[in-house]
Amino acid sequence: MSRSSKKVIANIPYSFDIERGSRIAVTMGDPKGIGPEVIRKALAELVKKNNEGTQRPCVTASEAKVLMPDTRSCSQSHFIIVGDKNLLGRIDPSVEVIDVPYKSAGEGSLKFLDKAIGLIKGGFAQALVTAPLSKEAVSHYAKNFVGHTEYLAQAFEVKKFDMMFIAPQMRLTIVTRHVPLRDVPKLITQKSVFDSIELMARTLKDKFKIRDPKIAVLGLNPHAGEGGLLGLEDIKHILPAINKAKAQGINAKGPIPADTFFAFYRDRNPYDGIIAMYHDQGLAPLKGMYMKQLVNFTAGLPFVRTSPAHGTAFDIAGKNKADPSSMIAALKLACELA
Amino acid sequence: MSRSSKKVIANIPYSFDIERGSRIAVTMGDPKGIGPEVIRKALAELVKKNNEGTQRPCVTASEAKVLMPDTRSCSQSHFIIVGDKNLLGRIDPSVEVIDVPYKSAGEGSLKFLDKAIGLIKGGFAQALVTAPLSKEAVSHYAKNFVGHTEYLAQAFEVKKFDMMFIAPQMRLTIVTRHVPLRDVPKLITQKSVFDSIELMARTLKDKFKIRDPKIAVLGLNPHAGEGGLLGLEDIKHILPAINKAKAQGINAKGPIPADTFFAFYRDRNPYDGIIAMYHDQGLAPLKGMYMKQLVNFTAGLPFVRTSPAHGTAFDIAGKNKADPSSMIAALKLACELA
Repeated sequence: MSRSSKKVIANIPYSFDIERGSRIAVTMGDPKGIGPEVIRKALAELVKKNNEGTQRPCVTASEAKVLMPDTRSCSQSHFIIVGDKNLLGRIDPSVEVIDVPYKSAGEGSLKFLDKAIGLIKGGFAQALVTAPLSKEAVSHYAKNFVGHTEYLAQAFEVKKFDMMFIAPQMRLTIVTRHVPLRDVPKLITQKSVFDSIELMARTLKDKFKIRDPKIAVLGLNPHAGEGGLLGLEDIKHILPAINKAKAQGINAKGPIPADTFFAFYRDRNPYDGIIAMYHDQGLAPLKGMYMKQLVNFTAGLPFVRTSPAHGTAFDIAGKNKADPSSMIAALKLACELA
Repeated sequence: MSRSSKKVIANIPYSFDIERGSRIAVTMGDPKGIGPEVIRKALAELVKKNNEGTQRPCVTASEAKVLMPDTRSCSQSHFIIVGDKNLLGRIDPSVEVIDVPYKSAGEGSLKFLDKAIGLIKGGFAQALVTAPLSKEAVSHYAKNFVGHTEYLAQAFEVKKFDMMFIAPQMRLTIVTRHVPLRDVPKLITQKSVFDSIELMARTLKDKFKIRDPKIAVLGLNPHAGEGGLLGLEDIKHILPAINKAKAQGINAKGPIPADTFFAFYRDRNPYDGIIAMYHDQGLAPLKGMYMKQLVNFTAGLPFVRTSPAHGTAFDIAGKNKADPSSMIAALKLACELA
């Protein structure tokens, strides 16, 4: 049996076993959204008391498929929630809660996140799971705030990062994120596509322990440009990026038409990673097909960060209607990769 | 019992009962593709001998869901295949076959289609189901051939038409079809979006007999532009088009973010029609979610035209591997709407 130690982090005392297992910081996101509810429900599902008498959180054996790694090792994980304790209701005593005072929902969302960043930087947590916040509400307190992913990349001085969406059968990143569709074609360059392929390959090797990952690269235009008839970017930028990746030993293939790709491979996908060119091209099919099982992972950060794929869902917040499936999947994946 | 009559169409004599039921012309598409195989398999599934002794094709009761109308009335339908008789193998004698000689696959594909157009124009068929052809192969014989849909629109002098994709729970048209992604934003105008909404509403009323159809209009940009932060087309062009439709009594709603739309409504969709802005936005999720059940319908033509959503699949042609599900669904829908 391991010892327990008391630690003081940023003036908030809390205790956990620092000798064993991984520590997963969980930010509450917008206190007016469904974050508190899905965290409470997810932990009620995941945390079961250990028979040996220690109140160690343990994760139920995963029923998730293929790409969600086995979560048995997560029985060693500790959860540290950063947010508003009053919103959590009854929660297993093994779960640490860092109660952070705040004045408004936007300010709170940001303070929870900053506190969690401190936990990661200080080595007190190895992974971060973020509940959804309102970009608009936060932007009153942090100028130019465009989202968790970009904020974390800046906080850890990471230049190349990608949002990765993980579902049964598919891991997908998008080369361009939250930009107008009009700007997408000019942002699809040999460099931007290559960088995403390279980061995908590296992440799959380092984080997901896949030795020789196979990567599918989608085209930009309908039918991947149909040999140039429906646009030239597929030939001029995407293909050279794939060839450069191949020359560096990466097992990449494409450009592949996006409209049929998801239909072909939804049930049995030979690719370890998929590179989509833009937001709706990757996310509309992925969300449509896998819905609740989808988890967001940030590729390129020096620690593990996951989040559910849904938003704050203000319209159903406080009504006990929120589905914790995606949060459960996010927590499990963080446990496993940490 | 009805009488049978002999008719001679374009010098090819064949007989059918012109007094009863609807007549469905079925083009074979590219003779080297999977067209002949899926037609043969689909008709083997659909055509059962009538117990009353007449060899009338009848369609099995539909197991298709919601949006595929009940097909019992199709027991009255006659199928007329236009193509290469030798490629069909054994087929129910109640099915008419117009054997069209040809020199090459591309020339054949085009001749089958032209013959079928003649059947429709002459009033010998009320509906057309087209098996897939190769645009590239056909373009040697018909300059600027971009696809069945555009060719038919030209043959019937129809200016406003849309490809409609029909799946369980969803009917979807796209405002822009086979154009480079780079050109999509400038093709999204108040007029082009309104025209698609109006045609969808008209088609749902006239062809699908829905009294007050509810229409969802997707946004162009990620998150439908997020109030202008991620692009202005949603506010400047799509919203006014929706408002114009509303002013004309059409029950339209949007712009709705595309990435979450399909996830929200895949199992229970309150909308009778969906307007997507471009190819991959509509087709990647629809094909990913519904795969084999998808049927293509051309909105705006003066007759019913359907087709399976797959292509020629040259790679598996002649191997008896092709799945006729989409062709079966296309035939059923044509029967019902004719």
